[in-house]
Order: sequence, then structure tokens, then C-alpha cells
Amino acid sequence: MTRYKLTIAYDGTKFHGFQRQNDLRTVQGVVEKALTKMTKGKHVDVVGSGRTDAGVHALGQVIHFDYPGQIPAENMLRAINSLMPLDVLAKDSEIVDDNFHARFGVTKKTYQYRVSCTHYTDPFKRFYTGHYAYDLDVDKIQVALKDLVGEHDFTSFAASGGMIENKVRTIYSATAVYNKSNDELIFEFTGNGFLYNMVRILVATLLEIGNGRRDVHDFLRLFEVKDRQEARGTAPASGLYLKEVFYD
Amino acid sequence: MTRYKLTIAYDGTKFHGFQRQNDLRTVQGVVEKALTKMTKGKHVDVVGSGRTDAGVHALGQVIHFDYPGQIPAENMLRAINSLMPLDVLAKDSEIVDDNFHARFGVTKKTYQYRVSCTHYTDPFKRFYTGHYAYDLDVDKIQVALKDLVGEHDFTSFAASGGMIENKVRTIYSATAVYNKSNDELIFEFTGNGFLYNMVRILVATLLEIGNGRRDVHDFLRLFEVKDRQEARGTAPASGLYLKEVFYD
Repeated sequence: MTRYKLTIAYDGTKFHGFQRQNDLRTVQGVVEKALTKMTKGKHVDVVGSGRTDAGVHALGQVIHFDYPGQIPAENMLRAINSLMPLDVLAKDSEIVDDNFHARFGVTKKTYQYRVSCTHYTDPFKRFYTGHYAYDLDVDKIQVALKDLVGEHDFTSFAASGGMIENKVRTIYSATAVYNKSNDELIFEFTGNGFLYNMVRILVATLLEIGNGRRDVHDFLRLFEVKDRQEARGTAPASGLYLKEVFYD
Repeated sequence: MTRYKLTIAYDGTKFHGFQRQNDLRTVQGVVEKALTKMTKGKHVDVVGSGRTDAGVHALGQVIHFDYPGQIPAENMLRAINSLMPLDVLAKDSEIVDDNFHARFGVTKKTYQYRVSCTHYTDPFKRFYTGHYAYDLDVDKIQVALKDLVGEHDFTSFAASGGMIENKVRTIYSATAVYNKSNDELIFEFTGNGFLYNMVRILVATLLEIGNGRRDVHDFLRLFEVKDRQEARGTAPASGLYLKEVFYD
């Protein structure tokens, strides 16, 4: 058995998320199906760095699996790409030590969130961005982003249904860049971990701050109150991209 | 009755082309359905500047129709957008003279063709670009584009099935720009008319020239031989955008 680490990108539009589910088309399911063809029927378990929801995209999701036999990393890349549908792409392949683990070894992740800021909904962006048609003061958003950086209790920003008790996470960087050429506001968040729907709830809150409907320092209050009802909105899955996963 | 001229954009991925077809989802069908809701059941015929095929996109298709009653142009824009699905967008609306005709009044059209030039197929571009994974010498393409400009017999570049006898068309401009930031080669062609599949056949030929598989001045020979078999390839619909339609 040889352990492979693969970096994959996918357009999440037509997937019911990353995680295998009976009869539903998922990223894990599609990758495992390709591997089963390579092994002529032997199932290979794929482990991802974490789940992504239906409609969420990845530019650099990381997975690992143990393959029966050994082929060069570049051949693995070519073989698996030839067997996967066009909405998943293996970008990089590496043979790794048996103690590499795609989920347990994660030290940091970067998520990107793209918001289309035109007053109309662009037909070409409906699956690839969120959309905010109202006034935005990007300077206010920049101020609010500074409050996010550091170690905080993100209870107010975790969708219910998560099983994780400890909701303290560290955000290493949180940025927003407004791209005038296509009227997109691009958020990036790097942290040691993210709770369920956390990025999408943070973005919805940031947009309300940018629109003046919340105080620019409302994050400080939201960290204190630890109440999901206070943060309210969740930005749509279509704008979210798992950009990069880091390991030691 | 009031005649409206609308400029519309659409993502062609989920349409069986522009033209109405029984039981199939088409752009014309979707616009007419929205108008029928506005008139409370009265059918309104939509006339487009021309058809686009299944999978072909539009940034600026032009249509006209005669609406029973008169509402301000901006209200028409808002009303029709609220009744159309998210893959069609009315961008501009104008009340025009009864002798404006979206098809017969066309003086020029601009088509854009986007080619993704990465060696892999980007999962986010599969419906929005063509793809060319081989070497390209963009300088050779630039030289070849000059041969296209002017009045020529495009018989070699017309898919069979067209009913048009006269295959002479004038190309006013033909350009290619290589965008390093996303590895896309963007062609634009402006002309007084385009035959069926003509842009897609021109692009396939231009890519063969860029790859060195055809002489850089092969267009001159192809104009002479007037034989569709000589031009061979047709670039996929996914890269083609009707960008702009011009009237006097």
C-alpha cells in the first residue's frame, strides 16, 4: 500500500457536497469511483481535509488514500484525472509517509468568499459568487476584519448541528479586496479551524456591517454574547471556495 | 402596441439555444413566457437578432417585441427581470419606433470566443470556454487574423445545413488577446454577418495555425477552395459569446 496526498479543485455546483452519501453525487464518491476503476474493483477509502457543503467549491482541497501498489505520483495524477468527470481536477499528487493524515494533520486552512456587488444578478455568476445588491462601505468592512483576527469564541458564528463543543478558533488573517474590473468583493480567511457554516455567517455579518446595518465593531459584541441568533444571516454556498489547506 | 428593444445576456449552458422549440428550454421561450405573465396570458412574439446554438452564451443579444400597452422602459426592464430565471438578464430596455427590427436592422455583430490554454481542463471553465492544451504561437495567430479582415467568400467556414446561398461576408475586425492572469486567449470578430458555425470553425482553424499544423496564411487558400472539408474542426459552443449587435 502506498499513501498518496492529492490536491484537488472542484466546481461544487453539481455535487451534494464532499462527503460520500449513498446514491448522491459527491466529490468523495467520484474520486473513490475513479480509484476503484484503477484497482479493478477494490475499494479505496478517501480521506479529505474536511467536508464542504453542497454548492461549495474548492481550489485546493487536500485528500489522502492508501493505494494497493505503487505508481509514480505524476502517473497517479494523470490516471485519476482521466477517470474523473470534468468538474473535479487533481492538481497535484505526492507520495507521502504513512503518518500523513489529510484531516488530522491540518494546521491551517484558507477559505475565499466571492461576492458579486452589482445591482443585478449576473447570469454567469449565479453558481460562483454570493450576491449583494446594496450599498457597501468597504472601509467599514476593513475595520471590522481587524476585530476577527486572533483567538475568539465563535459560538455566535456556528450553525447548529455541529457536534464540536469547543468553539474557540484562531484567525490568522482576514482580508477583503474589492475588484473594480468585475465588481467582486473577495474575502479571504486563514485560521486554525472553522466551525460549520462559520465563513458564510461571518461574510453575511460583514456585509451587514458594510451596509451600515450593524456597528463596525459588532464582532466584539458577538464574541461575548455567544448566541447564533444574533449573527442571523448565512451567505450562500455558491460564493465559498476552500482555497488552501496547510500541513506541517 | 408598443415596440421594445431589449439587450439581454444569458448563460447558454442550460438552454437548447435561442430559438423557441416545443417542450425544450430556450431563451426565446423563457422570455416569451415572462411576457405572457405580464400580459396575463396573451402571447407576445419575441424576435432576436439571430439564433445562438445550445451552449452558446450572450453578453449583448438584442431582441424586440410588441407589447400590448405601454409602460416606461425601465419598468419593463424591472418587470421582465423579476419574471425570468437567473440565467437570463435583461440589461437594457428601450421603446423604439415600429420600424426597428432586431433581425433585419442588424448592421454589424461582434462575437467573442474564449479559449482556456492550460494543459489541464479547469473545472470552473468547462461550460464557459473552449480548451486548447497544446502549444500556441500567438504571433502566428495575429498574422493569420489580418488575412480574415475584409470581404471574403466563407464557404469553407460554413457548416452544412444553412440555407443561405451567398456566403460572402465582410469582417471589419478580428483580434486575439492572450490574458496571462488566467491563461485565456480571447478572440473577437466583428462583421456584417456570420454563417452557421462560422466563428467556431474560424477559431478551430486559427488554433491549428497557432499550433503550426497549418500555414500561417492558410486562410487565403481556404477562401479560394470553398470547401468545408478543408477547414475541418469546429471549436465547442461553450467558448462562444454573442457580445454586441449593432444597428444604424
